[in-house]
Amino acid sequence: MENYEEDYENEELENEADYIESISPKIRKRTFSKKEFAKERRMGKKHGVAGLNNKGLQVMFFGGVGKIGDNMTALRYGDDILVIDVGVGFAEPDMPGIDLVIPDMSWLKAHKEMIKGIVITHAHEDHIGSLPYFLDDVKSTVYGSKLTIALIEGKLREFPKIKLKSQAVNPGGAVNIGCFSVEFIHVNHSIPGAYALAITTPVGVVFVSGDFKIDFTPIAGDTTDLSRMGELGSKGVLLMMCESTNIERPGMSMSERVVGETLDEIMAQSKSNRLIITSFASNVHRVQQIMDLAKKYNRKVAFSGRSMINTMELAMKIGEIKFDHKQIIDIEKADKVKDEELLILGTGSQGQEHTALDRMVKGEVANIKIGSNDVVIFSSSPVPGNEKSVTNIINQFITLGAKVIYDDLSDVHASGHACQTEFMVVHKLLKPRFFIPMHGEIKHLKYHEQFAINMGVKPQNIVVPHVGSVVEVGKNFIRELNDVPAGEKIVDGRTVYDVDNAVVRDRLQLAEEGMCVVVFGVNKNTGKMVNMPELIPRGFIYPNEISAIVKEARQSLIDMVTNSVGEGKPDWNELKNNTKKVLTNLFFKKTKRKPVIIPIILEV
Amino acid sequence: MENYEEDYENEELENEADYIESISPKIRKRTFSKKEFAKERRMGKKHGVAGLNNKGLQVMFFGGVGKIGDNMTALRYGDDILVIDVGVGFAEPDMPGIDLVIPDMSWLKAHKEMIKGIVITHAHEDHIGSLPYFLDDVKSTVYGSKLTIALIEGKLREFPKIKLKSQAVNPGGAVNIGCFSVEFIHVNHSIPGAYALAITTPVGVVFVSGDFKIDFTPIAGDTTDLSRMGELGSKGVLLMMCESTNIERPGMSMSERVVGETLDEIMAQSKSNRLIITSFASNVHRVQQIMDLAKKYNRKVAFSGRSMINTMELAMKIGEIKFDHKQIIDIEKADKVKDEELLILGTGSQGQEHTALDRMVKGEVANIKIGSNDVVIFSSSPVPGNEKSVTNIINQFITLGAKVIYDDLSDVHASGHACQTEFMVVHKLLKPRFFIPMHGEIKHLKYHEQFAINMGVKPQNIVVPHVGSVVEVGKNFIRELNDVPAGEKIVDGRTVYDVDNAVVRDRLQLAEEGMCVVVFGVNKNTGKMVNMPELIPRGFIYPNEISAIVKEARQSLIDMVTNSVGEGKPDWNELKNNTKKVLTNLFFKKTKRKPVIIPIILEV
Repeated sequence: MENYEEDYENEELENEADYIESISPKIRKRTFSKKEFAKERRMGKKHGVAGLNNKGLQVMFFGGVGKIGDNMTALRYGDDILVIDVGVGFAEPDMPGIDLVIPDMSWLKAHKEMIKGIVITHAHEDHIGSLPYFLDDVKSTVYGSKLTIALIEGKLREFPKIKLKSQAVNPGGAVNIGCFSVEFIHVNHSIPGAYALAITTPVGVVFVSGDFKIDFTPIAGDTTDLSRMGELGSKGVLLMMCESTNIERPGMSMSERVVGETLDEIMAQSKSNRLIITSFASNVHRVQQIMDLAKKYNRKVAFSGRSMINTMELAMKIGEIKFDHKQIIDIEKADKVKDEELLILGTGSQGQEHTALDRMVKGEVANIKIGSNDVVIFSSSPVPGNEKSVTNIINQFITLGAKVIYDDLSDVHASGHACQTEFMVVHKLLKPRFFIPMHGEIKHLKYHEQFAINMGVKPQNIVVPHVGSVVEVGKNFIRELNDVPAGEKIVDGRTVYDVDNAVVRDRLQLAEEGMCVVVFGVNKNTGKMVNMPELIPRGFIYPNEISAIVKEARQSLIDMVTNSVGEGKPDWNELKNNTKKVLTNLFFKKTKRKPVIIPIILEV
Repeated sequence: MENYEEDYENEELENEADYIESISPKIRKRTFSKKEFAKERRMGKKHGVAGLNNKGLQVMFFGGVGKIGDNMTALRYGDDILVIDVGVGFAEPDMPGIDLVIPDMSWLKAHKEMIKGIVITHAHEDHIGSLPYFLDDVKSTVYGSKLTIALIEGKLREFPKIKLKSQAVNPGGAVNIGCFSVEFIHVNHSIPGAYALAITTPVGVVFVSGDFKIDFTPIAGDTTDLSRMGELGSKGVLLMMCESTNIERPGMSMSERVVGETLDEIMAQSKSNRLIITSFASNVHRVQQIMDLAKKYNRKVAFSGRSMINTMELAMKIGEIKFDHKQIIDIEKADKVKDEELLILGTGSQGQEHTALDRMVKGEVANIKIGSNDVVIFSSSPVPGNEKSVTNIINQFITLGAKVIYDDLSDVHASGHACQTEFMVVHKLLKPRFFIPMHGEIKHLKYHEQFAINMGVKPQNIVVPHVGSVVEVGKNFIRELNDVPAGEKIVDGRTVYDVDNAVVRDRLQLAEEGMCVVVFGVNKNTGKMVNMPELIPRGFIYPNEISAIVKEARQSLIDMVTNSVGEGKPDWNELKNNTKKVLTNLFFKKTKRKPVIIPIILEV
């Protein structure tokens, strides 16, 4: 979307466009060596960095657009880059055995000398999870709230080689990072210490919403700082970048306080039951409410799940959660406590394997046996894609006789994301000139585009970005430049790989089609087969068919080799290819599958 | 749940219990040969069939309880069995490459001489889909509505060996099947020709809801026959068996007519756009509304997708849908029609691969290229478990520039299942003495149990069944007997297998862990290795690590063989096992994976 306006020199722009055209294919295709980078810097000095002439601000998207998760954005002006959030994403079903996806950060790493700082809006995994794979190379300071920094420190304990430089900033505080001045604005979200950002740049104020909602009756701290947003809007916001997670939902998000009231009712009605509650470990205010209610109803609390225990330790240390240590008992001793005096608080609300809840329902946690006196509360909601696993674990608890309460039935969970009324408020407070929707699938971003138009943003002043988008913003224009190299990488073990790699492709074919090893020997002088071919099929032939199919396969191979016998010496490559061809055809005819064929032909 | 009441002879019951105890382990463990079956029949004659003494009615659950799908129930009284619905289920994510799951019907097949008829409530796949795997052995007559029978005939065209005996029954009609008299009661659902059943049995009237909703403004035909239900309730219903799909949803389901009104609005606003609508092929009344609207707005309709075309042909033939043939054009010629005069109606609303919609978004249908003038309407909702694939295809259309309307945004879909208000009406009309919830996961069934108690059924008069449950009902009692052998089978190709089989297990391990073939030769006299081991790893080692790991693996194998050289002749089994052990340990250390190891050791 190009939208030059009056006071911008069109001539220079055209020169820039040529320059960008000339440099970008290189940028696209590879990352930079130090020498190349130095050269680009020199060229940048001459032409204005990447053709900017220091006129425009570049907003670069490395993740979080077109997909939920992987949030990572950068602002670049002249020689200064400010990174906002460094999150992880989740693997698609077509990546068997892969759990973690991270943004491709190679372009930023190649330009690390320009990175002046890393700002984290809040400490959810999709905003901090890729830091270990970024800070291994980029030595910039990380800024965020006290809780955010504490949770990042906790996370990095597992990566002892990384020395974190960090600075905690209070709500309303500001720091200068390169040519940017970043103000941290308090917002409500499902984790404390969440910030929106008001970034003063040489071209104007950029507002970055982070993840937020407006909670008029929050548990701790204040409502999202609406008056500061109003003040910013009055003075003039150049660009608003806003999350879009729940943009399709009408009305207002539920207040966190309602969850507490519902839990109170349930606990009042379940006085003789043992209580098991699962929630996100990072939802510290939810845990605070649960701790307060446990005290009210004289229940001891047993934490279950490593992330729950770790998060509570950290949150307690910095005063983000407050409770009496005497309330807590070790989960190993939980079976010694009477049902009516116990509350177990565990992770695993998404139904994932090996988490506290999953192990509990399987009878693997301490001596806890789930039964008809248990009331299990899912104070959470399924992350998109997890619907099936959440339903499965709910059904497992019910099968064991427990009463299960989940958010379809009762107000036991409040989303941390704004709904439409809240988006309206924020749009009208900020009245931005330019708008970029972020944090959403393409359907959310496009919906938010239309929503912003309804709120008064001119259609030509909106860009819907994708991963790799570079959006240039000036005082009077917004436009897309050529993409930077960007995309996704997978983490397998602790190592980072391309998403589309032979290893994952092999696993997919093995999973869907199975495999067959075939071994036989061929005389290297005569080209004749010297023994009966041996077949080792896996995952595609059922036992009742195996002998018939193997017999036929052997015969086809014998025929194939006999027919290939030409002038003596066999062509080994041809033999290999023909073996694959013959077996693929036969197996497909017999089983409708195309297994991976691994021919081992021995020269005898 | 045992609940004997006054007029039941307790002594006989105890004898029966012993008898059942003595016979059921055998039933559990295997299916019957003809001879064994004859023996059981003789014993049955002596003791009363399976201990019944013809006192109670047995309700047997072969599917549809504890899981959505796989609906199959049987009523048994004396020597007469009546089968109700023969549906398919859907594969769980841990069954790679398997699409279809069917009930284990071996017990019924072993007792096929007792089966007097098969009643189908309606023609959805989860009610008819397993018929090809049942009718291959069971030759009973199939009863259902005209549309149901027509769609079954259509389905069985692919199974020419099966000769269908069938009888279409009109709404309100009744047939005698063995000792049962089955009345077919008109209900609203997302397919026409759907019936509830009022079955008069020797012990009383059993009401089976089938899948239903109450639509006060249906498109064709009348509202669910509430007055007949009232009449039945006044006369006395012994047992109500009721679906539970949407039991958690408060209020009333949306009328099908609202969908038509919404589509009308959208079409009025999209006069210059090309329209693409996707829906379930079997939702004939939805298609009727779309055809009517296409006529109103002067659009030609192109059907896309085999099931859409087949269903429309059949529905048209029996008069269930009415439109002018001139409205239809071949999808191959659709690109010749102006955008504003075209409506494409296709299958694939669940985002499945290779369906009309999937092929359309990939540019594989005729010359249709999706672009910014397309309005795509998902007149459907995701079946649980399909949320991700539906979102994916929506995002693909939006990425190509199309405007997409789906049920989160607009009333373009109405569920075919009753919500709580409708369940209340039906419970109060029928006022059953005994109640069994069915068609739902355990969470739905347990919820429906509580719901029925609130509606006035005594808690001790309810049984929540599972697959394999046998519930015995008499005039004054309901109780669970021992289970029949039941469960799930998978269909791979056209053949039926056990769910837990080596083939699927192999594929799972291959998918998660990868595999490695290893080949080396060992001298059969000395036990020494004669060549360097060759390794063919797939799906677990990344290219950058391959040479180092292979090198180390070779060395470990050489060491292993050297250490095994004992008194000459090698122990081939030990060599094989040690090869597996050595490589499994090494690979796990290096890659955290446990690939399938296939050792091929050549005797040289």
